[in-house]
Amino acid sequence: MEGTGRRVAYDNFTTIDWIHDFAKERARQRKLRHQKGIGGQLRLIFDAMEGWIVVLAVGVISGILAAVITITTEWLNDIKEGYCKTGFYLNRKNCCWGYDDDRESCVEWVRWTTALQAKSAAAEFWTNYLIYIIFSTTFATIAAYLVKSYSSYSTGSGIPEIKTILGGFVIRKFLGWWSLIIKSIGVCLIAASSLCLGKEGPLIHLACCCGNIIPRIFPKFRHNEAKKREVLSAAAAAGVSVAFGAPIGGVLFSLEEVSYYFPFRTMWRSFFCAMVAAVALASMNPYRTGKLVLFQVVYDREWHGFDMFFFALLGIMGGIYGALFIRMNLKVAVFRKDSWLRYFSVQEVIIISLFTSIVSYLNIYMRVNPSELVANLFRECEGGDYHNLCNYTNHWEPTLLLLIASILKFFLTAVTFGLKVPAGVWLPSIAIGACFGRAVGLMVHAWQKYNPGFWLFASCEPDTECITPGMYAMVGAAATFGGVTRMTVSLVVIMFELTGALTYVLPIMIAVMISKWVGDAFDKEGIYDGWIRINEYPFLDSKEDYVYNTLASQYMTRVEDLTVITATGHTLESLDELLNDTDYKGFPVVNNLKNMLLTGYISRSELRYAMDKAKKKTGISLLSPCYFSNLPILDSTAFIDFKPWMDQTPITISPKFPMEMTIELFRKMGLRYILITQHGQLLGLITKKDVLRHLSAIRHPDVVNSEDSQEQPKYMMISERDLTNDFGTV
Amino acid sequence: MEGTGRRVAYDNFTTIDWIHDFAKERARQRKLRHQKGIGGQLRLIFDAMEGWIVVLAVGVISGILAAVITITTEWLNDIKEGYCKTGFYLNRKNCCWGYDDDRESCVEWVRWTTALQAKSAAAEFWTNYLIYIIFSTTFATIAAYLVKSYSSYSTGSGIPEIKTILGGFVIRKFLGWWSLIIKSIGVCLIAASSLCLGKEGPLIHLACCCGNIIPRIFPKFRHNEAKKREVLSAAAAAGVSVAFGAPIGGVLFSLEEVSYYFPFRTMWRSFFCAMVAAVALASMNPYRTGKLVLFQVVYDREWHGFDMFFFALLGIMGGIYGALFIRMNLKVAVFRKDSWLRYFSVQEVIIISLFTSIVSYLNIYMRVNPSELVANLFRECEGGDYHNLCNYTNHWEPTLLLLIASILKFFLTAVTFGLKVPAGVWLPSIAIGACFGRAVGLMVHAWQKYNPGFWLFASCEPDTECITPGMYAMVGAAATFGGVTRMTVSLVVIMFELTGALTYVLPIMIAVMISKWVGDAFDKEGIYDGWIRINEYPFLDSKEDYVYNTLASQYMTRVEDLTVITATGHTLESLDELLNDTDYKGFPVVNNLKNMLLTGYISRSELRYAMDKAKKKTGISLLSPCYFSNLPILDSTAFIDFKPWMDQTPITISPKFPMEMTIELFRKMGLRYILITQHGQLLGLITKKDVLRHLSAIRHPDVVNSEDSQEQPKYMMISERDLTNDFGTV
Repeated sequence: MEGTGRRVAYDNFTTIDWIHDFAKERARQRKLRHQKGIGGQLRLIFDAMEGWIVVLAVGVISGILAAVITITTEWLNDIKEGYCKTGFYLNRKNCCWGYDDDRESCVEWVRWTTALQAKSAAAEFWTNYLIYIIFSTTFATIAAYLVKSYSSYSTGSGIPEIKTILGGFVIRKFLGWWSLIIKSIGVCLIAASSLCLGKEGPLIHLACCCGNIIPRIFPKFRHNEAKKREVLSAAAAAGVSVAFGAPIGGVLFSLEEVSYYFPFRTMWRSFFCAMVAAVALASMNPYRTGKLVLFQVVYDREWHGFDMFFFALLGIMGGIYGALFIRMNLKVAVFRKDSWLRYFSVQEVIIISLFTSIVSYLNIYMRVNPSELVANLFRECEGGDYHNLCNYTNHWEPTLLLLIASILKFFLTAVTFGLKVPAGVWLPSIAIGACFGRAVGLMVHAWQKYNPGFWLFASCEPDTECITPGMYAMVGAAATFGGVTRMTVSLVVIMFELTGALTYVLPIMIAVMISKWVGDAFDKEGIYDGWIRINEYPFLDSKEDYVYNTLASQYMTRVEDLTVITATGHTLESLDELLNDTDYKGFPVVNNLKNMLLTGYISRSELRYAMDKAKKKTGISLLSPCYFSNLPILDSTAFIDFKPWMDQTPITISPKFPMEMTIELFRKMGLRYILITQHGQLLGLITKKDVLRHLSAIRHPDVVNSEDSQEQPKYMMISERDLTNDFGTV
Repeated sequence: MEGTGRRVAYDNFTTIDWIHDFAKERARQRKLRHQKGIGGQLRLIFDAMEGWIVVLAVGVISGILAAVITITTEWLNDIKEGYCKTGFYLNRKNCCWGYDDDRESCVEWVRWTTALQAKSAAAEFWTNYLIYIIFSTTFATIAAYLVKSYSSYSTGSGIPEIKTILGGFVIRKFLGWWSLIIKSIGVCLIAASSLCLGKEGPLIHLACCCGNIIPRIFPKFRHNEAKKREVLSAAAAAGVSVAFGAPIGGVLFSLEEVSYYFPFRTMWRSFFCAMVAAVALASMNPYRTGKLVLFQVVYDREWHGFDMFFFALLGIMGGIYGALFIRMNLKVAVFRKDSWLRYFSVQEVIIISLFTSIVSYLNIYMRVNPSELVANLFRECEGGDYHNLCNYTNHWEPTLLLLIASILKFFLTAVTFGLKVPAGVWLPSIAIGACFGRAVGLMVHAWQKYNPGFWLFASCEPDTECITPGMYAMVGAAATFGGVTRMTVSLVVIMFELTGALTYVLPIMIAVMISKWVGDAFDKEGIYDGWIRINEYPFLDSKEDYVYNTLASQYMTRVEDLTVITATGHTLESLDELLNDTDYKGFPVVNNLKNMLLTGYISRSELRYAMDKAKKKTGISLLSPCYFSNLPILDSTAFIDFKPWMDQTPITISPKFPMEMTIELFRKMGLRYILITQHGQLLGLITKKDVLRHLSAIRHPDVVNSEDSQEQPKYMMISERDLTNDFGTV
């Protein structure tokens, strides 16, 4: 076999070779097409359908899982308030089925204050307060304990890791059964605790777990890391689809934010997967409203030209918020991983949870569960009041409370995101932006109400409401969401799918655009890129432009510093020695040390595998000759041919090749290494990790990088110590 | 300067070198960033904003243009019926402003029958018939004449050419002023004639004209073909956005169907452009309904499980229809270009237009303008009847008429699309599918009505309408649309944006999926790919998988058949001779003819340009030595250095490199040529055209390809003869 050579499975924490995996898939397809007869035809059709079956299953299961999580979260949230007499497993809505919306008339639902016979107003307040604190902290503690004991990979949102995995990195178990189970339970508990965390990010991780586990039944996906990633891209789309009820937004999120290789076939499948997931979720109807998310909104008022000024302001604030949030959050994260704090992950959760619930209960806009809060902040006032938001006789009280809520939530979220519990940053960001936006909306409303003649408000019609604070909340939410994640198209589309009307897209788009510009002026990286950086994941961003005028030869490891293998003259013993003496991941093969003409490239794992296999053969001794080139005509069979295991046609470039184009080659072709040759003679080697180190040095010149090109990245969040905690072989 | 070398502008009908254009842009940016002071900072900011200013302008102008075309078309359509007494330039709606919807009560609008005093029913019928034929044919004739006389590039939908241009091919004037003007006028005339053609495709061409003309004011875009294509991608999105009121669908169309290079930055700009265009169109409100398209729909009924069976049937029919349509249309097109017919383009339009209007008038569903027809076919019956569609006492009459209409329209469109007039195939396809779908819906409706107890209809509730024929029309339209264009995601999203409800997406998605599978089982190519093939445009499809096990060496032009240039030993005279003797587009440069070590590659146009420039220098004679390598240390200045004009680091591969990966390199890196070397020695050359010829031979083994690798493609639609008709230097 010519070409990229045979390969064994990838080791954990290694980058995959896209080119090789595609070649493998094409070879498989060729074989399949050569099968004759009806059997062959059927196998061909079934092979084409496998991908669709997989994404269908991923979509359906993601949708059902999301519905179950939503229902469980709702029950946990209600249990903080009271319990159902007819069955403890019923949440308030189900318990009070048949009653009008008024909470008080439902006798089956017993509030804790009633059960504990707190009669005075003070006793009622303190009972509620205490029970709120106890439940919130208990939930968070259980989640932290589960994560620590059973699945350290269930931490956080999982999106940085998914990005890295989709970019072609192998992290075993990250998308396995234990992650799925523990994160599913944990995310319900966290969403019902008072911690400033959401369940949207984890839903994407959970969908990706489905997208990893389900395709295992088909060898096509099981044995090909590149094909596996196509399904994962679709699963990520399904995750967003169920998190926000936005299937198209999900596909674009997968395309924009997480996927690395996204051919059109994957897009169509992702779309199908996202749609199926949304329909599955809708058919479970977890909110009993027929809507896909709690905060789907409809406005019946247009915006005015002057509103745009305030929307732009919200955009600027969103950008500043995002940049500050990322900086602060990463500082806390770095402190957490480098200090003694890392040994006390559960205790840390308990303390922060206690503090958060004590503070939150005192402000109504912090006490309620954030998705309910966001739903009400987005709503127009025509639909009834919610905690004084529409009480326009007293603007100041809600405005002040909202501002306090947004500021406190900012600090709490920055500290909380990164705790070792399942946690997303989307919903808190949206809540912060919605609080701030609604506060601004209320202020503008008051301004217009008391100064209707002011020139700015000339376009308002008299005697009708002119300002829609709910729209301000929505624009503010989009701006902060954009500031933190630096998403653009997918964010606007998600917001578009929430409202469904074209009119509101323009303000949202402007705010997101400004927020991104302002945020990028501080730091170019979004929250996930920041986490990828501090975790030192080998992720090669395909969006950034590289404009430095350097040559490949300036960044290559020079041939003098490389360990090369000669095509002839080796024995199993000498190769054994070579492998023991070095820890390089691969070796260029040259014809001889004098001419240094490049013959190919062999990876450590393939060489090791081929050697182990050869040793088991009869007639092979440690001194049998090994060949990496065309075989000499020998009558003896006691030699080993490594040629099939070698990449015989590695991509080569000349030393004068510009570095920017080298990076493009790595990105677009998904390479692991490029060899630098001149007139066939090996001059050096550039690996993907060299490129990453180089790019990171340019972006963060203040961070001192270790100059030793051998050193492995630390993958700090996933230390070996953590790994031993993951039991099972999933 | 190292790297890809300096370049002159591309010749007409040549492929561009993406790598070089990106390198040029990066070099420009480097230069810009080195500018110091406030001036430098401002220039940097303005440079970043240029792209946004351009897409903003493209969006606004596309939106306004679409609105003007819509209004003009409506007026032309109305003029076929009568005229306005208060002003001939008013259409019926404006003329009868203030009257109720009833047409008859408006006295300002004078019908031709009234004006010509046709009193008996027969006279009225014949008057209307004749006037319909006369107007329709006149409109079509004027359009054909305009195209023939002023702009042969305004023919057809323009989408195959736009795909080719975005794929990196230069067709001068195709997106110029004359195309814009003539196609704008022509598309109004055609849409108002009776020809089975739509204005959606041409709207995309028009938006791309804007996207070509507007960026010319900025040197960044004017001098860089790759940058120009980023704006064109955005413009294509704006075109779909205004054609269907579907901005997100537009972006996905641009991504899925037409764009070749679509980085994320382009996606965000395309989205902005499409949104701006939609808002600009909406603010002009051409339909006076506040809606973006005539056929925006809302259903208030759900579909049932058994409906899905019929939807799948519609999907199968859509696929068959699409495959047959493409085959027939391409057969007609090939006959048209190869026979005497090509000399009589205007006469052909007249004859087909006459025939179409004579036939169409007799069937009400063919007589009305197709977008009005589609709007009414999509509509639910609650909104009132339209030509018997909701008259459920007599199912057979409308069903039969609809079936006849869909069959006749099929043949008429297949013959008509390809005439030398501005013409789109989208709306006719939608109309055909909608007619067929509605007919099926009516039949199912009748079946259910007369057999309500049949097991299939068990899920229907008694005494309420169960079947929504309008939804059948919509699904049918999606299926035929998909069958003809083989679009997937963008088509579903366009349909989704038309209805705005998630419930209807699943049926549409299933129908589109089945339609694509069935269509692909006949032929893999959509209508645009077919047109690209018969026009022999050099378009390298990035979607198709190539799975043949071949090596690069099997397809290269071997070095024995190449004309190479030696790095030294040439004079201006010998190079002149070389250029005169050969017509190759470029030449590999080697150190000498003995070693044949590769030094670089120089294109014909750059060599010619550099030689012409050198000849003007003093001290240079025809016998001055020319160098393509490092210069010898000479005291004389009378030599010419071609190194800066040469690509000094061309991409090279080994002869054993698999062909499938070679094709990937061409696609992903946007290359024009790859050199095959072994140990630095030149063995051969593969150009993009070699790859195209090779792929086309695999896909269509029946078509005998000329083996001569020198021969230029014919670009039949755009023959040199046609070109001379385009006057002006736009």
